[in-house]
Parts: sequence; structure tokens; C-alpha cells
Amino acid sequence: MNYERENIQAMHGYEPGEQPDQPDIIKLNTNENPYPAGPAVASALKGITVDKLRRYPPPTAMALRQSLAQLHNLSTDNLVVTNGGDELLRLLLATFVEPDERIAIAEPSYSLYEVLAAAHGCALDRIALNSDWSLPADFAARLNQLGTKLCFLVNPHAPSGVLTPAPVLEKIAREFHGVLVIDEAYIDFVDPSLQHSCMSLVRTLDNVLILRTFSKGYSLAGLRMAYGIGAASLINPMQYKTKDSYNTDFIAQTLAKAAIDDQAYARWTWEQVREQRSWLNAQLSALGFSAPPSQSNFILAKVPDNLSAETLYNGLKASGILVRYFRIPGLEKSLRISIGTAQENQKLISALQALLGSS
Amino acid sequence: MNYERENIQAMHGYEPGEQPDQPDIIKLNTNENPYPAGPAVASALKGITVDKLRRYPPPTAMALRQSLAQLHNLSTDNLVVTNGGDELLRLLLATFVEPDERIAIAEPSYSLYEVLAAAHGCALDRIALNSDWSLPADFAARLNQLGTKLCFLVNPHAPSGVLTPAPVLEKIAREFHGVLVIDEAYIDFVDPSLQHSCMSLVRTLDNVLILRTFSKGYSLAGLRMAYGIGAASLINPMQYKTKDSYNTDFIAQTLAKAAIDDQAYARWTWEQVREQRSWLNAQLSALGFSAPPSQSNFILAKVPDNLSAETLYNGLKASGILVRYFRIPGLEKSLRISIGTAQENQKLISALQALLGSS
Repeated sequence: MNYERENIQAMHGYEPGEQPDQPDIIKLNTNENPYPAGPAVASALKGITVDKLRRYPPPTAMALRQSLAQLHNLSTDNLVVTNGGDELLRLLLATFVEPDERIAIAEPSYSLYEVLAAAHGCALDRIALNSDWSLPADFAARLNQLGTKLCFLVNPHAPSGVLTPAPVLEKIAREFHGVLVIDEAYIDFVDPSLQHSCMSLVRTLDNVLILRTFSKGYSLAGLRMAYGIGAASLINPMQYKTKDSYNTDFIAQTLAKAAIDDQAYARWTWEQVREQRSWLNAQLSALGFSAPPSQSNFILAKVPDNLSAETLYNGLKASGILVRYFRIPGLEKSLRISIGTAQENQKLISALQALLGSS
Repeated sequence: MNYERENIQAMHGYEPGEQPDQPDIIKLNTNENPYPAGPAVASALKGITVDKLRRYPPPTAMALRQSLAQLHNLSTDNLVVTNGGDELLRLLLATFVEPDERIAIAEPSYSLYEVLAAAHGCALDRIALNSDWSLPADFAARLNQLGTKLCFLVNPHAPSGVLTPAPVLEKIAREFHGVLVIDEAYIDFVDPSLQHSCMSLVRTLDNVLILRTFSKGYSLAGLRMAYGIGAASLINPMQYKTKDSYNTDFIAQTLAKAAIDDQAYARWTWEQVREQRSWLNAQLSALGFSAPPSQSNFILAKVPDNLSAETLYNGLKASGILVRYFRIPGLEKSLRISIGTAQENQKLISALQALLGSS
């Protein structure tokens, strides 16, 4: 007999990016940081013994939240730590959206959002981005017309890498009657000279929730750690009611705290990624690719008109280089390429030159 | 403005057992294993470097599931690995129970079940256990009368420690029209001479789901690892649709596999706990306490008639020993005491002797 709920029977699961086992593959398909976590995290890892794992971990990750509060100049009441960003996104629906309510995204976006909506049983509306990947001017008005309870926006946007300025988001948040979630998974790679920050929004507005993750900026995708930043009225019900009681483990809390406490190392990796992003952009452009201006750790490279993105994806894969190809309208001419190390990026360009016959 | 869903606003969160920071406290309140994980796990932990954490972990924990499949003589399709037992319990509701359906528990039980039901928005029915902690003979019939979609049973039962024999559970599962979840969090501490096993139920019935955890038997509460065992038709929707896409992390998967692959060490800890359980039972009995026969790693000790359990709880706490006291009808005369090491148990008995004035 099938015991599944109707919405679960009807839905399709999330398709994770390829995670091949081969250690020699150049993996530029799932936006990991190309550099491992630094010496402070390595030292914290060495200090952990199995005896520390015998007992339950701190249920609300207080020590880590204290480090985060200091970093962001906020109170621990403004912070909830989650088992990866996925958990936070799911908690937002579980806490704030009734199954008969509607959520919205700007299209295209992270495909997990629609999987989460389907699992929760709520409706998902899609508002198309402008052709330059910016948000439509009437975005908030349209959310309100649709009766949207919660809206997910990724900023910098994925898969384009385009950054929406903070004042644009503030205007949307002030007009919008629901909860605005700003998924800042890639925020650490924004050029610091832009002085971009949405942090003041969570201090003044009670409907803005910012997501941050350790997966990209802090090189800890393998650990599953992320956090939400928002007004205490948004954070508390997730912290004390809807998250699993011990949702993050002792090792992950310890290493994440070490990573946060060593900002200098993390910033060094972000700077390397930005330098390589510039280099890769120039090289791709020389090969006839075009890309929107990315403030993220990936580039959405549109292939030259006479070429097929899927053919190039397969050609790179045959050369031991994985990038991301989306069979999605509007993206079928592009490859999303994560920024690797200088050596990896060089190999990518050489492989593309070979495939394009221009080496 | 309050954006919470109505059911979330109305509910109370789960109250975790006290997790004090003081390293010298004797902690017999949350049923952790008194022995740390063994040398195989310690060695696996030593082998992990930060470079392994840079990439996303295997999304379905395949290597660990292969070890589990071998241990239980099942297919990996019968196994889903979760971020602690809490995640599996929540997934069961998210996957199989509509918010307007009903679930049931045998009362008293793990207080998290009612928190999960409140967060999910479904109704929870309670069927009282007999005075000897056994299930009522008409349990399945009552579930069917109530229209129960899913029933949680802890076996061995918490907080009594009493084991329900497998044939009793099989009869219930065959009669019951919904999903029967057997929460075996404490199963590793059952006396092997009883030859108790419910594993044949998941091979023959498509409505039985068994929960196992690494928190107790494998001394890894700090890691948050558990797994569900059931027919592929029950496991698949959780594996591929409702669980977070990367729900368990690389370190946790690696250490859990090492723990499973070293059964001899884990069994040694279980044997120690059983020996200490016998010793503690005899000592408590000599002090005038009575307890149902426990097959778990705790004892539900009813205090002598003339004493107050709450006073004893506070007295022990003042002596640096934490046990669990429940302000719940039917349990207010009892203390739930986790089995510690021989030294810890000796100190508990000495402290009780002092408090009872019988030293």
C-alpha cells in the first residue's frame, strides 16, 4: 500500500549537482570554495576527541552564535544556526507559510525552492527577472497582488551572479506584506569596494530574513552549517519550536566557530576567488563567451552563438572537468562555471580552447 | 507583525534535558552511553582533514548505508540515514501524515512526539499503557477506530524501560491500517539472551518503520546520526523527496560507518551497561525503590512511599548528580536514572544513601 501524502506522491525530489568519486576530476559544478578551510579550523578539528561526542551537543549552538553576533554586531537573539542552508529554507516554510498559502521566487532561481514548496504543499509563483537579470520595478506590488506570504531571493543571484543593490531590496521589503528571505549563500564573494550590505535591514524591518552559509565562503560544504539572521520575532519560533531540537552537531558547531573567528583566512580565499573571477571572465570573453557581471564564485557563461552548451558540457566532462549545464528555458545556451584555483581555471580554459579548435 | 502560522504560535517547543557545562557533574539524565566511542571511531576521526570538508557530502550516505545493509542483512533501499532520530520522526510526519490526519502514541511517551505533531499541525491521540507498562490488548483496534494514520511506539519503552515482545508488535502491525513506527533508540541494551528482534517485520510488512540511533548504543549523541529501516516504499519518499538534500555531514557519515563496522567494541559497552543495570537495580531495591524491569540504559525508579521524587532530584543535583524528574501525572513519584559507569553508579547510590539517611 502507498502511505505517502498526495503532495509527496505527486512531487519530484531535488536533483543534487554531480558529486563524482574520482579524486582527479576538476569540479567546477557546485560552487564550492576551491581552497580548504584554514589552519584555525584544522587545529579545532585536531582538538576534538571521541569523548566529546558522547553527549548531546549544545541545542542552540550558543558559543557559535556569540561569535556570529560579534561578527555582525547583532544579538544572539537575531541568529539561528541550521544544518545547512537547506534546513533554514525548509524551516521558513514550516514556520511562516500555511500549506494553503503562496510563496514566490524570481525566475530563474535555485531549483530547491520549488521542491520545498511541493513538499510543504504550498503554491509557488514565479516572477520573471528582466533580461539583464535585475528585478522588475513592480516586484513588491506583484508579490502583494499575488498574496505572497514569503518570497525567496538569492543575492548575488544564482545562476547569473548578478548583485541586486541593498536599497532595491530595502524598498521591496518595505512594500512587501510578507516575509522577504534574502539568500546570501554567495555574499562573501562580492567586491568589498561596493560596500554592499543588507545587514541594516534586519535591524529595522521585522520581515527580512538573511541566509548565510559556511558551505561556500568558509569552505565547509561537507559540514552542513548555515545560519539565519533576522528580527527576534522571526528567529525565535524557528529556534525554539520548529527546528529539530539538536539540529547541528558538536563538531560542526566547533569548526564553524573556529572559521568565523578567523576572518582573515576566509577573506584571503574570497580575494583569490575574485582575482580568478576577473581572469576567467577575460579568458572566456576572448573565446567568444559572454557573461553577466558576477559578484559570486561562479560565472554564467553564454557560449558563442554557433556552439551548443550541452556539447561543450559533455566535451569538458570527457576532459575530466565538470561544470553545470541546465536544461532550462533561457539557460540552455549557458554553462555555470564555479571559480576554481588558478591551476584549475587554466586547465578549463585550455580544455575549452581545444574544444573550440582555437588552441 | 507576527508572521508565524497559527499552529506554531499556539504550540510550545521541546524542552531538552539539562546539558550543563560543568565537566565534573555526573550526568545521568539524558541516557547517553557512559563509555566513549571506541578506537576505530577515534582513528576515523584522526584521518579527517579540512580538505575533505570543502565539498558537499554524499547526499544519501551510501557507504554508511552499505555497512548498515550488511549488518542487518537488508538492501540499502531499506535504509535512510538522518540527522539524529528527531529528523527521522519529523520526516515521517512530513511524508505520510496530512495536517488534517491523526497520529497516536502510547502514553506516557517521549515528549517530542507531541511537539512534532503540533508543529506539523496534526492531531495526536494518546492511548494509556496498562499499569505494568504493557500495551492494551485492543491497541490496534483502537488505532483503527481513531482513524490513526501513523503511530509512534518506543521499544524498549521510555521512560519505563519495559520491552514489548516482537510478536505483540507484529500482531499490531498486521491489524493496524496505518504506519507503525517502532522507535528502537534503546534496543542495543536489550539482553541478547531474549533474542528479541523486529527486523523480520520490515521484510514482510510495508507499514513498519524502525528507528535506530547512534546517540545511545554507539556513544555518538554529539554527532546527530540515526537511521530508518523499512520497506523501500516507505524509505524512498523520505530519501529522495522530503529529507534535506544533504542532511548528514561528511564527518558524521564517516564516524558512524566506523562505529557500525566495529560491532565488537559497541557490544562491549552494551554489556557493561547491562551489568551495571543489574547492580543498580539491586542497590536501588535495597534502598526501597521499585522499578519496572528495564531492557534499556536507564531505570525508572519509583521512590519509597514516604519520600518525594522532586526533593531527591534536587538533593542529587546539589550533590553534583543529574537525573531526570518528570512533572507528569503517573511519573511524579519516579526518577529516570541513566546507567553510568560503575564509578558513577556507585556515587549515585552513596548520594542516595546520604539523602535517605541510611548511609
